[in-house]
Amino acid sequence: MSQPTIYHIPVCPFSQRIEILLRLKGLSEAVDFHVIDITKPRPDWLLEMTGGTTALPVLRDEAGRVLKESLVILRYVEERFGPAPGAQTDPMARGIERLMITREGPFGMAGYLYVMNRDRAKTGEKRAALLDHYRWLNDFLVRHNPDGTWLFDTYGLADIVYTPLFMRFWFLDYYEGFDLPQTPEFARVTRWRDACLEHPDAQQVSYEQIVKLYYDYAVGAGNGALPEGRERSSFVFEPDWPGRPMPPRDKYDRIASDAELGLIAAT
Amino acid sequence: MSQPTIYHIPVCPFSQRIEILLRLKGLSEAVDFHVIDITKPRPDWLLEMTGGTTALPVLRDEAGRVLKESLVILRYVEERFGPAPGAQTDPMARGIERLMITREGPFGMAGYLYVMNRDRAKTGEKRAALLDHYRWLNDFLVRHNPDGTWLFDTYGLADIVYTPLFMRFWFLDYYEGFDLPQTPEFARVTRWRDACLEHPDAQQVSYEQIVKLYYDYAVGAGNGALPEGRERSSFVFEPDWPGRPMPPRDKYDRIASDAELGLIAAT
Repeated sequence: MSQPTIYHIPVCPFSQRIEILLRLKGLSEAVDFHVIDITKPRPDWLLEMTGGTTALPVLRDEAGRVLKESLVILRYVEERFGPAPGAQTDPMARGIERLMITREGPFGMAGYLYVMNRDRAKTGEKRAALLDHYRWLNDFLVRHNPDGTWLFDTYGLADIVYTPLFMRFWFLDYYEGFDLPQTPEFARVTRWRDACLEHPDAQQVSYEQIVKLYYDYAVGAGNGALPEGRERSSFVFEPDWPGRPMPPRDKYDRIASDAELGLIAAT
Repeated sequence: MSQPTIYHIPVCPFSQRIEILLRLKGLSEAVDFHVIDITKPRPDWLLEMTGGTTALPVLRDEAGRVLKESLVILRYVEERFGPAPGAQTDPMARGIERLMITREGPFGMAGYLYVMNRDRAKTGEKRAALLDHYRWLNDFLVRHNPDGTWLFDTYGLADIVYTPLFMRFWFLDYYEGFDLPQTPEFARVTRWRDACLEHPDAQQVSYEQIVKLYYDYAVGAGNGALPEGRERSSFVFEPDWPGRPMPPRDKYDRIASDAELGLIAAT
């Protein structure tokens, strides 16, 4: 290999961050991306590379050295390939950016727990937990850039970190009918999120793709695990998602079959 | 103010990191440290500065801008004052360093939960949880620097991040009789920890100080909260810790009184 390779699952939000950052730098070709089929056991060569852990994404450099963890890989790309145009250079601004990024883990987790829940009695608390994070983000933006769009004047690292999560949360729009309340306390974060969703360097995935691929999450099965009664994961490569129908939304009542989801290849 | 100030609780492990890093850079005077008495309600000026949150440490720069979160502040100091002698500059080495640092939160939490537990039936599981983290650290060091002392050739950021936690865990030595098993699976991390404890730039706190100040944690009361039957916290400034006796170790059976802990000033 003559350049780093990132191994990731299909439409992985954590590697989309890297793709966005590379595009902003004009370096989309500087890193190879290799999709791992998570509907099958991890291949031996991958486990050997990671020292046995199955978590993705993983970055391997030209010398065979390996990094894990989305934000660790993001900083590697930042440091190795130099700053993107408009990137913050002031240590305090970079600190504020880092502080905002500290929330991304709990924020992402809240959205995933919300979509995976199938107990109607718990839907309200899952929604409330996610809204708490949005409220925190709103307050943070109001504090640091009340009248702007991004955290700072240009689309930067903190914006990049959250953008792929906003896109994954399309599964909440589709399966839960979730959107941000149109109230003043969410106005700033709504403006930010909407701009992130439309940023021209962040169009690696689509609404339809997320909704179809993440169907299994909506019925409680993550990371390529099979929901009850199913033989094929919604993350299979074939049939590919563009040829499949939109999944049913009634995630609380039943689990759709392989056939209904268009997961059975024509013979 | 002509330079940044860090507001922190007494013997705070998270601000000790900053002190160690500054000493390594030869810049111990570049940041002021202001101790907050956590046995009293937070002063209004502090709450105003933080936007209402009580978590410490907090850094305020000359322009009045505020940062929170230990690792965010550490990176600010790193970027603002330039690299320490021997600091890693290769992006992959810095990535490996960051990867090791991702474990510090769960590692620290495991030690605090262990010392705060007063249910003998749960001591075994608390100990096992902490040992899992030490095992992970051992494997990490074996993978990246099997024959050395630190993560790399010189005492650097990852070593700095863990050193103050190893020192706080003196409370586990004293109140729980905990030490690392002398077995091969912990040999590498034991060598590292022992060297961290003895590093000349990391001698801001002592065993006796930690054991006396953290007595309340050992009986289940954190962050300046008062244990049952007590009127004064083990974190009070007066009488200062050097004049107090060593606390009793029988944390599972009873809570020592203010008088026994030497917390009542002579009149």
